Amino acid sequence: MITLTTDFGLTDEYAGVMKGVILAICPSVRIVDLTHGIRPQDVRQAALIISSAYKFFPDGTIHIVVVDPGVGSDRRILLLETSGHIFLLPDNGAASLLPPIERAFHIQKSSLFLKSISATFHGRDIFAPVAAHLACGLHPQATGERIDINSIVRLPHFPPSFQGNSLFGKVIAIDHFGNLTTNIDHQTLDRFCSHDLLKVSVCIASKVLSGVHSTYNFVLPGQPLALLGSRGFIEIGINRGNAASTLKVTLDSEVQLRI
Amino acid sequence: MITLTTDFGLTDEYAGVMKGVILAICPSVRIVDLTHGIRPQDVRQAALIISSAYKFFPDGTIHIVVVDPGVGSDRRILLLETSGHIFLLPDNGAASLLPPIERAFHIQKSSLFLKSISATFHGRDIFAPVAAHLACGLHPQATGERIDINSIVRLPHFPPSFQGNSLFGKVIAIDHFGNLTTNIDHQTLDRFCSHDLLKVSVCIASKVLSGVHSTYNFVLPGQPLALLGSRGFIEIGINRGNAASTLKVTLDSEVQLRI
Amino acid sequence: MITLTTDFGLTDEYAGVMKGVILAICPSVRIVDLTHGIRPQDVRQAALIISSAYKFFPDGTIHIVVVDPGVGSDRRILLLETSGHIFLLPDNGAASLLPPIERAFHIQKSSLFLKSISATFHGRDIFAPVAAHLACGLHPQATGERIDINSIVRLPHFPPSFQGNSLFGKVIAIDHFGNLTTNIDHQTLDRFCSHDLLKVSVCIASKVLSGVHSTYNFVLPGQPLALLGSRGFIEIGINRGNAASTLKVTLDSEVQLRI
Repeated sequence: MITLTTDFGLTDEYAGVMKGVILAICPSVRIVDLTHGIRPQDVRQAALIISSAYKFFPDGTIHIVVVDPGVGSDRRILLLETSGHIFLLPDNGAASLLPPIERAFHIQKSSLFLKSISATFHGRDIFAPVAAHLACGLHPQATGERIDINSIVRLPHFPPSFQGNSLFGKVIAIDHFGNLTTNIDHQTLDRFCSHDLLKVSVCIASKVLSGVHSTYNFVLPGQPLALLGSRGFIEIGINRGNAASTLKVTLDSEVQLRI
Repeated sequence: MITLTTDFGLTDEYAGVMKGVILAICPSVRIVDLTHGIRPQDVRQAALIISSAYKFFPDGTIHIVVVDPGVGSDRRILLLETSGHIFLLPDNGAASLLPPIERAFHIQKSSLFLKSISATFHGRDIFAPVAAHLACGLHPQATGERIDINSIVRLPHFPPSFQGNSLFGKVIAIDHFGNLTTNIDHQTLDRFCSHDLLKVSVCIASKVLSGVHSTYNFVLPGQPLALLGSRGFIEIGINRGNAASTLKVTLDSEVQLRI
Repeated sequence: MITLTTDFGLTDEYAGVMKGVILAICPSVRIVDLTHGIRPQDVRQAALIISSAYKFFPDGTIHIVVVDPGVGSDRRILLLETSGHIFLLPDNGAASLLPPIERAFHIQKSSLFLKSISATFHGRDIFAPVAAHLACGLHPQATGERIDINSIVRLPHFPPSFQGNSLFGKVIAIDHFGNLTTNIDHQTLDRFCSHDLLKVSVCIASKVLSGVHSTYNFVLPGQPLALLGSRGFIEIGINRGNAASTLKVTLDSEVQLRI
């Protein structure tokens, strides 16, 4: 199985053409769109989404991530193996939130690529055919040289920080419903306060929300709350509403947790 | 075969992750997106779209409908059988426009669910795995207790009303082209006026449109008309134009038919 | 395999319903969405996209193109064969940019259609079932009468024009990234200047861009450039930016190349 995560959008033929290339090489493979709605060139959003999603797919799935502002430059194209999954992505930080990489290869075997390579659409010309060959049985080591996993580009990491009785984090994603995903994962929250999540106060956009809950229905429709999000991070949402537009919160806004 | 109808949008990984869960359990099933573009929490739109669409799929298709503002509350998750199709949906009115339900079950068999259940994403954690098990042969009665079909939540029903020589209805959907779907179905129109649809006047947004036609090309480009829509309801459209924006019509606007 | 290219958008059930019809007739066929994001009724955009994309699919693929402002009129529905591919489309110019057509049929065999034909959704009622029958082995000549390929409607053709030391073209598409596709293909550029593409000046929106390059990274982030686009035409883009919004360029804007 192959998944696709790109910033190509759905108004052009780009994602469809990648599927054509894949199916011409490996007609029996299943292809699932994770999303083509990553904001253009937003590598951080791609990193978050692929790391949240891959684990729901069967072992052996090949995940293509093409958010690739450096296409045509000398940035490397990587094949990474971890947790029983394979990831094909540019070496630009998109792998930053994956579990520890077990093996990494620099994809360079041009006989696997389309015959004519554009300098602007490696998704079609390189990623798609290489993934198809892998899906049909090619070994990862046949795609290029093995490389040092410490050489892989990582995004700057700003973990939530503990300061006295507070935990500071920030908003790293805003979803279709306007829910705000923070960078405070459930494990970090546990370390901050494992005994009673209802005693935590969550401060965002000059609002103070009481407790961290499990479901929107803890508050009345239209009211904001903090909850344990389904991606594994604390989220701020509004029951039957849109937190981002109502609270006027943007990406990177600060979130503070207090006991 | 499984179809998906949700309000998840396509910018996040949510719909793709549901497919991963399904394919991990039942690798051979076909999955078709009906739409992920239901307006957030708009159960009525979901009810219209699933009832218009299901009949074009093969018998035995499993239709997942996740427009679920009550996720995490005590609203039930239902399995409904009618007309040879199976529907999985929250008990919130999304089934209101389906044909009479033949059998209904309250999905509760947690051994069919993902092991870790979030309180905010039952599409991934409950709907997807249950549908996958059904697609691979599980019997509906193995998902939970059979329930009384009269206990199923239904949306308030406002059918078109006859008053003297007039038939009053309203706009219940606006599609991508700006066509206005009314709640006047073809059978109701037949009862109102079976002999000559060209003698009907259709009043909307202070315009009077002459006749109910079968094709846009009855009028010149840019002109509005009423026609027998492909969803089985009277629609108001503009030949090569957008009726909603041009006529400034919104959902729930009144439509009047006169002879 | 069947591909779909429409202006249906993704908020309604229309594209999903076409898949239901196809799979009810031919359960084993693969279906790939090229795009449902063609601007409503924009036949030229459909013509560009299908001609850029079809060649990346395997021989024998059936391509459905439904951008069909004349639905329900007496416009013909065509089956065209060229280059080992089959195209089903309305006779409205959508085939204008395909390679020379080898055989053409007027689809009229109503026993292949859905039993009840609406006048407004031939994608569902005619295109989908005919494509499904073809995918499951029906011969093209069984869909209707063979017709003269010279009778097929073509869009007016405005090729780039040579005037002295200049080549004049125009913008024919703006993609999701804001890249501007011109109507100057790589062959025409070769005829204009085969020896040194870096000596070409590209004038657009009162900017003069130096050279035609292969990759965005030739310029600094935020800077515009002309390059050999992946669709086979010269494109104007901005490295990590949006050329359409930054340069305020719209469809049909003039582009001039000078040596």
